Amino acid sequence: MAKLPPDEVLLMGPGPSPVHPRVLEAMSWPTLGHLDPEFLTIMNETMDLLRFVFQTRNRLTLPISGTGSAGMEAALVNFIEPGDRIIVCVNGVFGTRMADIVGRCGGVLIEVKAEWGRAIDPDDVEKALDDNPGVKAVCIVHAETSTGVLQPLEPVVELAHDRGALVVVDTVTSLGGIPVKVDDRGLDVVYSGTQKCLSCPPGLAPLTVGDRAMELFGKRSSPVQSWYLDLGMLTKYWGKERVYHHTAPVNMIYALHEALALIEEEGLEPRFERHRVNSAALVAGLKAYGMSLLPPEEERLPSLTAVLIPDGVDDAEARKKLRFQHGIEIGGGLGDYKGRLWRIGLMGHGSRRENVERALRAIGAVLNDLGHKCSADEALAEVDRVYRTAG
Amino acid sequence: MAKLPPDEVLLMGPGPSPVHPRVLEAMSWPTLGHLDPEFLTIMNETMDLLRFVFQTRNRLTLPISGTGSAGMEAALVNFIEPGDRIIVCVNGVFGTRMADIVGRCGGVLIEVKAEWGRAIDPDDVEKALDDNPGVKAVCIVHAETSTGVLQPLEPVVELAHDRGALVVVDTVTSLGGIPVKVDDRGLDVVYSGTQKCLSCPPGLAPLTVGDRAMELFGKRSSPVQSWYLDLGMLTKYWGKERVYHHTAPVNMIYALHEALALIEEEGLEPRFERHRVNSAALVAGLKAYGMSLLPPEEERLPSLTAVLIPDGVDDAEARKKLRFQHGIEIGGGLGDYKGRLWRIGLMGHGSRRENVERALRAIGAVLNDLGHKCSADEALAEVDRVYRTAG
Repeated sequence: MAKLPPDEVLLMGPGPSPVHPRVLEAMSWPTLGHLDPEFLTIMNETMDLLRFVFQTRNRLTLPISGTGSAGMEAALVNFIEPGDRIIVCVNGVFGTRMADIVGRCGGVLIEVKAEWGRAIDPDDVEKALDDNPGVKAVCIVHAETSTGVLQPLEPVVELAHDRGALVVVDTVTSLGGIPVKVDDRGLDVVYSGTQKCLSCPPGLAPLTVGDRAMELFGKRSSPVQSWYLDLGMLTKYWGKERVYHHTAPVNMIYALHEALALIEEEGLEPRFERHRVNSAALVAGLKAYGMSLLPPEEERLPSLTAVLIPDGVDDAEARKKLRFQHGIEIGGGLGDYKGRLWRIGLMGHGSRRENVERALRAIGAVLNDLGHKCSADEALAEVDRVYRTAG
Repeated sequence: MAKLPPDEVLLMGPGPSPVHPRVLEAMSWPTLGHLDPEFLTIMNETMDLLRFVFQTRNRLTLPISGTGSAGMEAALVNFIEPGDRIIVCVNGVFGTRMADIVGRCGGVLIEVKAEWGRAIDPDDVEKALDDNPGVKAVCIVHAETSTGVLQPLEPVVELAHDRGALVVVDTVTSLGGIPVKVDDRGLDVVYSGTQKCLSCPPGLAPLTVGDRAMELFGKRSSPVQSWYLDLGMLTKYWGKERVYHHTAPVNMIYALHEALALIEEEGLEPRFERHRVNSAALVAGLKAYGMSLLPPEEERLPSLTAVLIPDGVDDAEARKKLRFQHGIEIGGGLGDYKGRLWRIGLMGHGSRRENVERALRAIGAVLNDLGHKCSADEALAEVDRVYRTAG
C-alpha cells in the first residue's frame, strides 16, 4: 500500500523540482469550466506570464496540455512534413529523442553529434547545413538534462537563419532558471516543461512560436499528424475564437499561473543570479569532496550539475541512502553514464543555499559510509566562500 | 486581473465535473520524483484501481499523460497504420473527431452515421463491415458528450469480432458513472478522461488495451507516429522495466488515485444506481418545465442530459444568468444544436440530489425571467416522486 499523503522528499534530481507551497496550494483551487469566462482570463494571463519568462512577444505562446515531451513533439510535428530535411543536434538523451520524433514525422534526419557531456560545435552545424542544402529546421537542446550541458545558441541561430532554416530549441531545463531570450536570440520554436526551473508539478509544456515558423506552418501541404498537438486548432482555443478543442487541465494551469507569478515577483535577473550562485556553491562543495564535473566549466548548466561518481562508490546504494536516510532525491546517469554520473538539480524554488548545504552534508555522509573519505566541514567552508564572494 | 483563488462554481456542464474535496486535497500533496519507489507504488495502485473501474484484467491499463483527447489519439495512432480500413461511427462531435484522427493516421476512413441525438444502428455497422472486407477496427462512442446519447455496445462488438475487427470505444463520459464492462463486453481498446464521472480535474486519460489489440500492436510494420503516445514505450515505463519515457504528471496521478479510491469505497453498482436515480429526477423536473429531451428514453445517458431549450429563450443569456446569478455552469449545444440545446451533467461527485434540486430551482428562475413560465414547486414535486419511488 502506498503511503498517502507521501512524505516530503527534497527533490534535487533532474526534475521534478521542489514546488513552491503557493503553487501546490493553487493545484487544489476549485476547478472551473474550461470555457468559463473567469478561466479564460486565467488562460490569457498565463500566456502573458509565459511571454515574460520566455522573453518574447510571440502571440502563439501557450502551455501544451502534456509534459515536456509533448512539448517537444508539438514543436516538431507542426513544422515537419514528410521529406523535409531536418538537422538534429545530438549530445544526450533529449537530442536523441528529437531525432526519433523527426523520423516519425517522415523527416529526412541529419544528425550533428557531440560527445555526451560537451556542447555542440557550431562548425559541425555549419558543415551539415552546407552539405545539405534546403534544410528546413535545426533542432537543438539548450540545456541537456542528461549531461548537464548548457549549449550556446547564438552561433547556431545565425548559421541556421543565414540558410533560411528555423531553429527549434528545447529549454526544458533552462526556462525560468537561465536566460532563454527567445526574441533577442531569434529562436523560432521553443518548448519547455513545468517541473524544472518553473517549480511547478509536471504536466504542462510551455511553447512559443515566432512569426517565421507560423508562416511555414500556414504553408503546410498535409495535416499535422497529431490532432491533439495541432497548433492550428490550439491557437483557436487559446486565441480570441475560443473554439473548443480539448478540455484544458484547469488546475495544472492554476499552478503554472501561480508559478509564473512567483517568477514575475522575483524578477528574471535576480532569479538567474540565484541559480548561478547556488550552482557555483554546490560545485565548490563537490570539488572539495574530490569529485569531477562532467561538462567543462563554460558549458555547465546552473540548474543541473552533472558530477562523476568517485571510483569505488556504488551508485544505486548511494542514491538509496540519500533517498531513505536523508530524504533527498538526486538523479543517476543515463546511457553510457549509467552508474557513473550523478545529476544534481538546483532548480527554481529548489535553488537555495539551505538545499546546497543540506545536500552536501548528506552526500558527504554517504560518500564516507561507502568508503570515499571526505570532509563535509571543508566542503561547507568552500561553499561559504562562494556565498561571501557573491555578496 | 483574474480573481484567484477562483470562486467555486457548481459544475453541471458536460465536464469538468465537481471534484471531491479529497481529490482536490490530493492535488497538493508533496511532489515525488517520477521514478521514486513510493511513486512507483502509487502508479501500480492506480493501474489496479483503473482495472477495477474499467472492469477488466487487462495488463495494459494506465492513464495517458494528457486529457481525454490524448487518450483518443493514443487509442487510434497505436493501432492504425497507413492503408488500414477503419470504421468510425459518427453521431456527434466525438465520432467526428475520431474520424479526423483516423485520416491523420493514413487510415482508410469508413463512416457509419446516425443523426445527432440518436444511437448508431448496428445494422448500419453490419452493412459497412460487409461492404468493406478486412476492416481492422470499428470505433464507437459509448457516451456521446455532445448529444447525451448512450450507445448500446454489445451488438456492435459481436459484429466486429465476427469479422476479426477490433472495437475501439470512447468512454469519456461513461467511465465511473455507467457500466463499461471492458472484459464482459470484449472491448479491445477503451479510453476515458478524468474530468467526467471520475470527478477528478482534467489532465489524464485512462486507457485499457486487451490482448487481441496488443497482438496487432506487436505486428506493426511502421513506428507509431506519436512518440509521446507510443504504447511500446509507455508500457515499459508503467511496467516492470521502469524505463524512463516522460515525466509522469505526478500530482495529477495522486488525484486520480484518490478519485478511484473513492469509487472503490462507494462500490461500482451503488455509484451507477446513484447516477441513474439522480438523472431520472433531473429529467422529471425538466419535463415538468415543459422541456423535451434530445435522445429517446432508451438512448439517454444518466451522466449527461441533453435537453432542448424552450422556444423564445435565449441560450447565451440564460446560461450567463445561471453562471453569474446562480453560480451554476451548464453546457450549450454544439454543431447544429448550438443555441438550441443544453447539456446538463450529473457526473461522479456532482451526481447528488442537492445538485439536482439546486439546478432545477435556478433553471426555473431563469426560464421565468426569460419569459418561459413554469413552476419550480411542481418540478420539485416530480423530483421528490422519483426519489421516493427509488427508495
